[in-house]
Amino acid sequence: MSKLLPSLKEAVTQSGLEDGMTISFHHHLRNGDFVLNMVCAQLAEMGFRNLTINASSIHESHAPLVAHLKTGVVTGIETNYMGSAVGRYVSEGNMENPVIFRTHGGRPSDIENGSSHIDVAFIGAPSSDCMGNCTGKLGKSACGSLGYAFADAMYADKVIVITDNLMPYPLSEFSISEIYVDYVVEVDSIGEPSGIASSTTRMTRDPIALLIADYAAKVIQHSGLLKDGFAFQTGAGGASLAVAAGLKAIMLDEGIRGSYCMGGITGYTVDLLECGCFETLMDVQCFDLRAVESLRKNSRHIEVTASHYASPTAKSCLANGLDAVILGATQIDTDFNVNVHTDSQGYIMGGSGGHSDTAAGAKLSIIVAPLTRARLPLITERVNCISTPGSTVDVLVTQRGIAVNPIHPDLSTRLLEVGLPVVDIHSLKEAVEQISGKPNRTAPKGKVVAKVLYRDGSVIDTIRNV
Amino acid sequence: MSKLLPSLKEAVTQSGLEDGMTISFHHHLRNGDFVLNMVCAQLAEMGFRNLTINASSIHESHAPLVAHLKTGVVTGIETNYMGSAVGRYVSEGNMENPVIFRTHGGRPSDIENGSSHIDVAFIGAPSSDCMGNCTGKLGKSACGSLGYAFADAMYADKVIVITDNLMPYPLSEFSISEIYVDYVVEVDSIGEPSGIASSTTRMTRDPIALLIADYAAKVIQHSGLLKDGFAFQTGAGGASLAVAAGLKAIMLDEGIRGSYCMGGITGYTVDLLECGCFETLMDVQCFDLRAVESLRKNSRHIEVTASHYASPTAKSCLANGLDAVILGATQIDTDFNVNVHTDSQGYIMGGSGGHSDTAAGAKLSIIVAPLTRARLPLITERVNCISTPGSTVDVLVTQRGIAVNPIHPDLSTRLLEVGLPVVDIHSLKEAVEQISGKPNRTAPKGKVVAKVLYRDGSVIDTIRNV
Repeated sequence: MSKLLPSLKEAVTQSGLEDGMTISFHHHLRNGDFVLNMVCAQLAEMGFRNLTINASSIHESHAPLVAHLKTGVVTGIETNYMGSAVGRYVSEGNMENPVIFRTHGGRPSDIENGSSHIDVAFIGAPSSDCMGNCTGKLGKSACGSLGYAFADAMYADKVIVITDNLMPYPLSEFSISEIYVDYVVEVDSIGEPSGIASSTTRMTRDPIALLIADYAAKVIQHSGLLKDGFAFQTGAGGASLAVAAGLKAIMLDEGIRGSYCMGGITGYTVDLLECGCFETLMDVQCFDLRAVESLRKNSRHIEVTASHYASPTAKSCLANGLDAVILGATQIDTDFNVNVHTDSQGYIMGGSGGHSDTAAGAKLSIIVAPLTRARLPLITERVNCISTPGSTVDVLVTQRGIAVNPIHPDLSTRLLEVGLPVVDIHSLKEAVEQISGKPNRTAPKGKVVAKVLYRDGSVIDTIRNV
Repeated sequence: MSKLLPSLKEAVTQSGLEDGMTISFHHHLRNGDFVLNMVCAQLAEMGFRNLTINASSIHESHAPLVAHLKTGVVTGIETNYMGSAVGRYVSEGNMENPVIFRTHGGRPSDIENGSSHIDVAFIGAPSSDCMGNCTGKLGKSACGSLGYAFADAMYADKVIVITDNLMPYPLSEFSISEIYVDYVVEVDSIGEPSGIASSTTRMTRDPIALLIADYAAKVIQHSGLLKDGFAFQTGAGGASLAVAAGLKAIMLDEGIRGSYCMGGITGYTVDLLECGCFETLMDVQCFDLRAVESLRKNSRHIEVTASHYASPTAKSCLANGLDAVILGATQIDTDFNVNVHTDSQGYIMGGSGGHSDTAAGAKLSIIVAPLTRARLPLITERVNCISTPGSTVDVLVTQRGIAVNPIHPDLSTRLLEVGLPVVDIHSLKEAVEQISGKPNRTAPKGKVVAKVLYRDGSVIDTIRNV
């Protein structure tokens, strides 16, 4: 009565994996993840070809994947986010098949409705028993929530759990049940938990970011949405975290008790729970180790699946109940379309993650970003890539003012009444261009290197060879 | 942002329910359940016809269902257990379509693989939020685990949650997620929690039952299976509970720490957890209110789905990891086939529940039963209905001795060596017949009134009109 196999190689063999099939990974260990590289190295050694990787995210630590793309071990990538290490290789037109980008909500939706099929799922599990009951809450590589891995476990033909902490059966604190698992493999280490906390999850000290955060918190304060029952998501960028800190002060001051915070959870979000600003944290992913500890210990901090987080085809999801979400942008255009996939040269260095899901779901979606980065302007006439359509973006907050999407004149009036610096997005654009100059629009014109699927599965944009 | 509808009638209307469709229910409130009767009354009032009810169990409290069978509102029944109130009506040949009996593991398996389709699931939930995140752990009608309802929620076309305790969104302690729920209806009461504890969940004082329990505990003690990591299920009948008490004494005395106890959980099982005999309780159903409280409070007492409990098509399940299970019988024959569906006249008054699942899964399945009931002998030449095949039954324990299935000569030897009264099942049969007389075999010969599906979906037996 055990699914434990002596090696990853043996598990791959028993899984029946064949050339051309699709394998999947989750990214809960983020930049600390060893599993994707370990599996790809094993598959290369075994001589596999033409595999497609469906990974919920591909981080900088997955740079070794480039070698497997070069040799043809891997020839397809589907993901919700791609760091620049692999992104640059893709943007240079080195892959024959376009990358498929999805959203954190669209990915489980497509897996569940069958339009995205996984042959073999590899699930890095910080703790598992010999039958595959597994969790991210326990063990030396604890990463907290395994939210993104549920759809893979439930719908892949074969499921291989890879763990570095084998526990007695049955592991009662399981997140993913043995009913979905075929094989279990024990390895020395599935990752480096300190890699979970990347640079994007630390609070900023940049005065411009802090100013932006202060404006954003005030936009929420005066939006009419900040009242008991308020539901909120903030991202992991420095300015986003600073908004959380600002909001905390406002909520405590005004005695407002929100319902839930969600998204990638950080220590700052845990603060919001512990100080009573929110009733509960709904956690699809822990962004730092304090979040991991809170998920383990606090019964009001709950793991949720990616479908529960944001699936557009679930009968309902948490993203659609949000009051406000704070999001970043690498570019935004005067129609409020946001690009988080490519840099200003058009190189892939990101992805939607839950960006477009929460922008669509929240009553108020706020983009926080400085007006320039490396002297390149944030606001463009047309973004290089539409990650999130402008119709779902409500406010842009910069250090030089707050632009409200003209579809919300009431909000604009409300913010002006309390003295916030509301400005037209075109004026913001011109103001910056007077300082930094109007950039040459350098939209790549080459072959399509990636298709960006919106959360409903439709192609919202394509990314071209730089 | 709410799925809350003003009435059950409105929810039924919006669900698109039509004549001839299949609706489903779970039985976690057991004899205290109001939901099945409430829904059927509503559907009758709305003029529905030819509905099939797929209920995980039908209890005595569901006697009003007979009226709906008579009027043709309901013309099909699929269930894992049927009390005598409805059972007698069925056995008298009053239904045109045979009842389909499944097992607690076979039911979710068939729902998940599509061979058993549910159009509209009605889920009685002791607590729910307005989007359908719901649980059995909280509320005035708390019944604990909702294990049997997961497959219904996950696979029915439409899911209606009926609750008598509406909680703020999001209910963080949810068992069943909003992602599966279409509508929520609030009613005054979904049931009477005291009805959860039926007469079958109280400890016996009958000296014969206590003697049988003592033998059974000793069979386990000397089976070679009772060691650290031991996994165990006992039923809710008085003798079964007495085995738990006996086993507890042995385990404490010998310092043995088992892994998990499962099945319907009672206060006696909770005792086994709390005194350290077992690491964890895996709970598909709470059989009494102490179990409900333990599930709510003890992190080592875990709710599991019916698939995790016993599905034969899950990639693994807890039933298949059992060392020993204690089960009852209304009849057993000399080939060790067990009947738990019909009484000695052939009237339906029970069903497999998890009987045949756990008998198949456990290394040691022990039937405990007195040799006669109401002067009718337990052991027959041929059971009226094969609920559980003799090939999966290992030992019969009676007050007159212990019969070991001849497929296990080693076990027989082992028990004899420690002085236990091992006897041939034929001798037991004859000994009783010398006292009570040989019964006239009165196997019903009428039309088929029920088909008994084994856990793998095959028809293991049929039940005929009395």
